[in-house]
Amino acid sequence: MTDLSRRLAVARGDAPADTVVRGGRVFCVFTREWLDADVAIADGVIAGIGAYDGAEVIDATGRFVVPGFIDAHMHLESVKLLVDEFARLVLPLGTTAVVADPHEIANVLGSDGVHWLLDASEDLQLEVYFMAPSCVPASQFESPRRALTPGDLEALMRRSRVLGLAEMMNFPGVVNGLPSELEKLQLEGAEHVDGHAPGLLGKGLQAYAASGIRSDHEALTAEEGRERLRAGMWLLIREASMARNLQALLPLVLEYGPDRIAFCTDDRDPDDIAENGHINGMVREAVAHGVTPEDALLLASFHPAQWHGLDHLGAVAAGYQADLLLLPDLVGFVPDLVLKRGRPIADVPSVPVPEWVRQTVRIKPVAAADFAIPSDGARIRTIGLIEDQVVTTCLEREPVVVGGQAVADAAADLAKIAVVERHLATGRIGHGFVSGSGLRSGALVSSVAHDAHNLVVVGMTDEDMAFAVQHLAANGGGIAVVERGRVIAECPLPVAGLLSDAPLADVVAQSAATNAAAHDLGWTGASPFLTMAFLALSVIPSLKITDRGLVDVDRFEIVPLALAATNEKQ
Amino acid sequence: MTDLSRRLAVARGDAPADTVVRGGRVFCVFTREWLDADVAIADGVIAGIGAYDGAEVIDATGRFVVPGFIDAHMHLESVKLLVDEFARLVLPLGTTAVVADPHEIANVLGSDGVHWLLDASEDLQLEVYFMAPSCVPASQFESPRRALTPGDLEALMRRSRVLGLAEMMNFPGVVNGLPSELEKLQLEGAEHVDGHAPGLLGKGLQAYAASGIRSDHEALTAEEGRERLRAGMWLLIREASMARNLQALLPLVLEYGPDRIAFCTDDRDPDDIAENGHINGMVREAVAHGVTPEDALLLASFHPAQWHGLDHLGAVAAGYQADLLLLPDLVGFVPDLVLKRGRPIADVPSVPVPEWVRQTVRIKPVAAADFAIPSDGARIRTIGLIEDQVVTTCLEREPVVVGGQAVADAAADLAKIAVVERHLATGRIGHGFVSGSGLRSGALVSSVAHDAHNLVVVGMTDEDMAFAVQHLAANGGGIAVVERGRVIAECPLPVAGLLSDAPLADVVAQSAATNAAAHDLGWTGASPFLTMAFLALSVIPSLKITDRGLVDVDRFEIVPLALAATNEKQ
Repeated sequence: MTDLSRRLAVARGDAPADTVVRGGRVFCVFTREWLDADVAIADGVIAGIGAYDGAEVIDATGRFVVPGFIDAHMHLESVKLLVDEFARLVLPLGTTAVVADPHEIANVLGSDGVHWLLDASEDLQLEVYFMAPSCVPASQFESPRRALTPGDLEALMRRSRVLGLAEMMNFPGVVNGLPSELEKLQLEGAEHVDGHAPGLLGKGLQAYAASGIRSDHEALTAEEGRERLRAGMWLLIREASMARNLQALLPLVLEYGPDRIAFCTDDRDPDDIAENGHINGMVREAVAHGVTPEDALLLASFHPAQWHGLDHLGAVAAGYQADLLLLPDLVGFVPDLVLKRGRPIADVPSVPVPEWVRQTVRIKPVAAADFAIPSDGARIRTIGLIEDQVVTTCLEREPVVVGGQAVADAAADLAKIAVVERHLATGRIGHGFVSGSGLRSGALVSSVAHDAHNLVVVGMTDEDMAFAVQHLAANGGGIAVVERGRVIAECPLPVAGLLSDAPLADVVAQSAATNAAAHDLGWTGASPFLTMAFLALSVIPSLKITDRGLVDVDRFEIVPLALAATNEKQ
Repeated sequence: MTDLSRRLAVARGDAPADTVVRGGRVFCVFTREWLDADVAIADGVIAGIGAYDGAEVIDATGRFVVPGFIDAHMHLESVKLLVDEFARLVLPLGTTAVVADPHEIANVLGSDGVHWLLDASEDLQLEVYFMAPSCVPASQFESPRRALTPGDLEALMRRSRVLGLAEMMNFPGVVNGLPSELEKLQLEGAEHVDGHAPGLLGKGLQAYAASGIRSDHEALTAEEGRERLRAGMWLLIREASMARNLQALLPLVLEYGPDRIAFCTDDRDPDDIAENGHINGMVREAVAHGVTPEDALLLASFHPAQWHGLDHLGAVAAGYQADLLLLPDLVGFVPDLVLKRGRPIADVPSVPVPEWVRQTVRIKPVAAADFAIPSDGARIRTIGLIEDQVVTTCLEREPVVVGGQAVADAAADLAKIAVVERHLATGRIGHGFVSGSGLRSGALVSSVAHDAHNLVVVGMTDEDMAFAVQHLAANGGGIAVVERGRVIAECPLPVAGLLSDAPLADVVAQSAATNAAAHDLGWTGASPFLTMAFLALSVIPSLKITDRGLVDVDRFEIVPLALAATNEKQ
């Protein structure tokens, strides 16, 4: 008897279910009703909703039975955990599927890295879907190990669990009809494509939508969200550790209803998840802000499945995969029980980590002198940090010049920043300044620097910057805080320089220690290393930095540090 | 410059549009708002919504700009027109796309007939999509020319414009897990499948949904509709010429909103369309019954596109095909102007009709004696007609016996019915009686007899029945009314015995004449030939008739005419 014919026998009541979830209030995503009914499960699939018997009965009396949560857009690498450890973290929180864009590992390890992540996530209870990274490099100003070609993308999109083309971050390229970007959009498999268009409005947004891109998770304001919905784009409401857009966008749910809106986490710190939950935390927040529990549940389950065409997920109904949560209430959204394919979540086996994905940091050795910036006193372009945002401002500042060199100066709110190419040991370094960090001494370094993941270092002395970079390179990547030639906290990330191979608790402790150490050195924002990670991302406004120099994202070009054209070092 | 790069240039405002629809109120299907904006069109696709210039400007001041209507489920053959003539009929009414199930022609001409319809509809302005006929024959009790095999279906589903598997009419087979039916559901391409489950509720409906079938257009009552929505099935609200379910189901739109509900016409007479409109008539009716114009428009455009995954249709937004209607008001829903792929509808070229699709009726010659029914006076199973419904009741009646034969008798409300096999000239005839027709004399005959399209004849004398069948066979099919050996009205349908090759006006006139003639002979229902067409369909309850005899659809078996087991003729 095939699974299907057995499922039908269970549905008819002619055969007992494997498991019956009995007596709960079952959420119907289609009518937004609560049905008092049993859920019959056969071979991991829901056979019927009604009155059923089964070999095993789970008592759901007084509980709410809802579909498992689905993260509509996220980057596994941001969580810094191997995918098995990520599964151990989020499954108990009710996240039963995620749609990941693996562009971080793609920048470091090419399409091989993506194929490895696909293989590594194959047998987890957590269902991990992928989108093929559309922009490696994110722009011509970034230096990954190698670019992904259209051929790489085609091969990826032919694998099962790869749903389409990931966030098309080169939105200026798309809007302006750059042939290289249009070619990607017209690949077989790229009919389904996620967007990424921060700040884009008006005719630019119309052009972006006209290209066939029908989602965006970069809306920061209700006005941006409204225009995206009107243009036919799905609004993926993002609540990342750095970019928290939920509260700003919830009014749109109240105004228009939840259609074509879904939740996503984008980039989440492991400690943030451990503390605040995952998608379930977004549901809780939404309800706390006046969204009905029914609408909030849709945003967290059925709608992400709808957007991505995951027709077997997102509903508690006959024929859907039996990914169910039993919730004790509609306030906290912490499940009592999580069923994945009809089975309680179990020990997640460890994913093997081959040697070739480790120790990926290759630099030309650096010394303090490599971070010196000669200056004739001309005003300098300075990256202005905005707390808890991935966007920056472009400031014009007087440099502090000592001995013919522009230096970091806490009193002047100027820290040095550099990006060191780390894939091919070219020795290429981009130099700049940031304002708004609060840093007073030492240096912070990270091999997590979107999207090319070269080494980003922010520091108050050239010596500490050089020491930090050398230390990180020697250890295969990670994040570290140094002061006066000493490592005061660190979180090693030996897998591609992006992921830890340690358990969650260790990573959370290390991550907290590095944050605390950064705060001890004066950093004021909540998430120093997440902030730094986005300073190298050359597709988010306004002023960013890569190993090739400062990038004016609004003009989409490399710009010199000095505003006067004399003596600047690029 | 490719179409896409030109479209983006138009969207940006860097190049003039081909056409701009200016100054109208543009319906946004995503937010259900009316936007005061221009619509810019480039190469048949909407480039942007905003303020635009173009080579041609269409003034839409004071008018409503809405997406073209889409029929979610229909049978081209029911309209009796060649597809080009059908396009001429419905395009001006605002129907710009239809999803057709060509199972009628498939019963007569096999998959060759379907491939021909696909080819014949390729270059029309009307966009004709198909579903591969899942049930040819509709059941084992019917005799098409040949059965469609899984291989036939696979080949069909690989053609562009074939979206999936058409209505799975053998719902008892699916529910009971019949391997032949499950095999079809598991074919590549059959992930998208339409349902057909009249009267199915409870665990049977759960089993049907558990098989992956996620639509139904057979709900007659709000309760049936509600259960389908709750089970995760799209509710396709049907307003066919015979089965008018709109009013009964509209309360669900008011209760739940329009999500996962769409309009379809299923089987429409040409005169019905000419008189009452097509999908636009359903929109008008819905609004007249209290549905908001915005919700009604969704049911008629965006939602059919959503159900069928037609991602380029159903919305007036950048990147969507420019299928637009300009409506003078939100009451009548008769468009002032229809744009298809950005162009006003034009003369539709004639589709060539090859000789092999004509003259398909092959019978073994019949005489009056072939319609005689010996009787010992035992009570007989009688088909009870229900006006304007495709379902029938199963009555038990006393026969009127004359000279040892059960005969038709107007006073007793009994007419004779027979189905004559007409594909392979086997001479096989099924016999029965109907009650509720009102017929007093003569005979009505038709080669349109779902789904096998053998010849169905209802008459008051054996002589007229034989004459009617012989006449129709000699003329290659059609519908006709005869009395005392004379044809008093007819509508020839030489193409597969299903379609006319005449213009609409002729077909409407012929059809009206046959209806009038049938009414002159006493028939009381509004649509005698549509009623007759469904009397042979062995998958709609309760008592039907095929060339193999009476079919008890509820028990799903052939049953004898006589209730006593003696002397019945089968």
